Amino acid sequence: MSTQIPGTALQLRSLVRPDQMVELFLDTVEVPKPGPSEVVIRVEAAPINPSDLGLLLAGADVTAAVASGPADRPVVIAPLPAASMRAMAGRIGVPMPVGNEGAGTVVAAGSSAAAQTLLGKTVAAAGGGMYAQYRCVDASLCLELPAGTRAADGASSFVNPMTALGMVETMRLENHGALVHTAAASNLGQMLNRLCISEQVPLVNIVRRPEQEELLRSARATRVCDSSSPTFMDELTAALKATGATLAFDAVGGGKLASQILTCMEAAASPPTGSYSRYGSTVHKQVYIYGSLDRGPTELTRNFGMAWSVGGWLLTPFLQKIGPEGMARLRSRVVAGLSTTFASSYSDQVSLAGALQPDAIAAYARQSTGSKYLITPSLEG
Amino acid sequence: MSTQIPGTALQLRSLVRPDQMVELFLDTVEVPKPGPSEVVIRVEAAPINPSDLGLLLAGADVTAAVASGPADRPVVIAPLPAASMRAMAGRIGVPMPVGNEGAGTVVAAGSSAAAQTLLGKTVAAAGGGMYAQYRCVDASLCLELPAGTRAADGASSFVNPMTALGMVETMRLENHGALVHTAAASNLGQMLNRLCISEQVPLVNIVRRPEQEELLRSARATRVCDSSSPTFMDELTAALKATGATLAFDAVGGGKLASQILTCMEAAASPPTGSYSRYGSTVHKQVYIYGSLDRGPTELTRNFGMAWSVGGWLLTPFLQKIGPEGMARLRSRVVAGLSTTFASSYSDQVSLAGALQPDAIAAYARQSTGSKYLITPSLEG
Repeated sequence: MSTQIPGTALQLRSLVRPDQMVELFLDTVEVPKPGPSEVVIRVEAAPINPSDLGLLLAGADVTAAVASGPADRPVVIAPLPAASMRAMAGRIGVPMPVGNEGAGTVVAAGSSAAAQTLLGKTVAAAGGGMYAQYRCVDASLCLELPAGTRAADGASSFVNPMTALGMVETMRLENHGALVHTAAASNLGQMLNRLCISEQVPLVNIVRRPEQEELLRSARATRVCDSSSPTFMDELTAALKATGATLAFDAVGGGKLASQILTCMEAAASPPTGSYSRYGSTVHKQVYIYGSLDRGPTELTRNFGMAWSVGGWLLTPFLQKIGPEGMARLRSRVVAGLSTTFASSYSDQVSLAGALQPDAIAAYARQSTGSKYLITPSLEG
Repeated sequence: MSTQIPGTALQLRSLVRPDQMVELFLDTVEVPKPGPSEVVIRVEAAPINPSDLGLLLAGADVTAAVASGPADRPVVIAPLPAASMRAMAGRIGVPMPVGNEGAGTVVAAGSSAAAQTLLGKTVAAAGGGMYAQYRCVDASLCLELPAGTRAADGASSFVNPMTALGMVETMRLENHGALVHTAAASNLGQMLNRLCISEQVPLVNIVRRPEQEELLRSARATRVCDSSSPTFMDELTAALKATGATLAFDAVGGGKLASQILTCMEAAASPPTGSYSRYGSTVHKQVYIYGSLDRGPTELTRNFGMAWSVGGWLLTPFLQKIGPEGMARLRSRVVAGLSTTFASSYSDQVSLAGALQPDAIAAYARQSTGSKYLITPSLEG
């Protein structure tokens, strides 16, 4: 392990330009000196999560991306649809650092005990701006990884594990007894499946293709519904009846899926025959949208009574709600399960420059099952 | 006032037939003898509220309604679209009594003191099945109207007044400081406008036509936005910024209106320039859908951050939430304001048979502003 720190290093930036183009490039920035409570991490691994794509790509049409510049300092530009441009007003002209989380070695530390104790250690941090060779963060944001853990194995220890735990916690806080999850073959979905098995929480997995169903069944998932099946609605209703699930977390967002889930929840909640209520059942049905794999409008048919709610769900406000103690409790569970329940795997590893190759961008923007990119910023491109 | 009670009397019924037709007719039913705690009301006035139409018309295509039978015992049939038929499974073959609320004279009473004290009094009741000449209900469901109140003036003392009060109470319970209301020129909307003026609650009224805006402005509404205006979104955003309203009650349901409200709430909540957050503002934005003037799907564009929720809102569960004491408190406020804040007016009065004329059905099914029907069952058709 070398602790020689260069004066400057590379950082990936995403810039929305006034001409409706997104520009991705590697900036050369000074490596900061840590303040008393801070540490400097040499970032060795940082995942590209779905939650990074909004900031990174800004809704650009990546199929029209054009690269220029030398191989180790690529510049990529891609056009932004007008509709996406409106939502970007706050960031026009500001080159944004990207990367919610990552892991690496602490190569410099401030004078405080909390910072000094991390010197030389492998840590994970969800500090933002992690697509960089060096990142200076407050020591309190660092999670010290168990001795011997590789940075690649701790890089995804925050976003997906805490989201999976947050879904199960939300289920309990809001008095539901089971969960529905869409895009269930995703990295997060597989993690949630392992978590629900270990916690004995009934989980209804919704996928979009037969091979995704196989993948989950081979991971011991008992309830998997394929939305491409002609009998999807019947199968989902049966799974909801069997589990009593009245809470869904939806990564798809657009289209009819949220509405279909509510329709099937209502069918599962209603008595098969007998009394008619014009306002539907009194069973409260909740769908939280936490992703936007389909960026089109959410279409709700409202044929599921009046006791329903659809809303946004985000990790950060949830963590604020449970407070520092709740968060610490969840963090310690992640550390304990880092190589089991909360393990991540990657299909591709790329350098910072490699992350800006148009074919790589097209691949991770597609967010297809089984494809997950890990950036290794300390590798030269 | 005659207290001579016939042995049988007329009751309006709505029947969904297995052949996908809705049949509306007047049934001749026995007038029940009241149990000890019950009273028999001679129903003199019962409004046709939007909330009655679901049970009455069952989603039928009333433009294709066909009437038959004698003038005083009409039978109307109208076809049901297949989509509506699915939701009606629980009521096929069961002729349903209709009419959420009404008022009239207590002509018979059971032996209990609570029942006896109402004998001869004019009362309002939200007992269901009020489109009938006589209705037997528990005395506890009756609201004794102040002496001298005509039945017509007390007929609408439950659904609209309690809904308007429920909206303001919900605003306070869920920590919002102002309200948005759609279809704001409706009978309920005008009532809510008067209530908010008297309670000093900032209210943003959304209407669909210039003449509805005029109607509300003449009723001293200060903030009215016309969704047919080309600058609607800007006007709504300005009104939301001025009031800080983050809660809307939407009677329209289908289409883009709920989404537009959330978009404008987000624009009003965001700082005009400066810091960009890819997840939008942290201000929670809530739309409750309580009606379905547009029965098409609700389309949410989700360009309003992640702190949002859209859900169903219904009076009955709200009243259950605030409990008997809360309900009694609201009821006494209705009585005090029956001729002012909570007054209703009607464009048309019809007998039970008159309510089944195809042109009347077409008129009240349209739910257009200024058109409100009152059924007077004690009038012979």
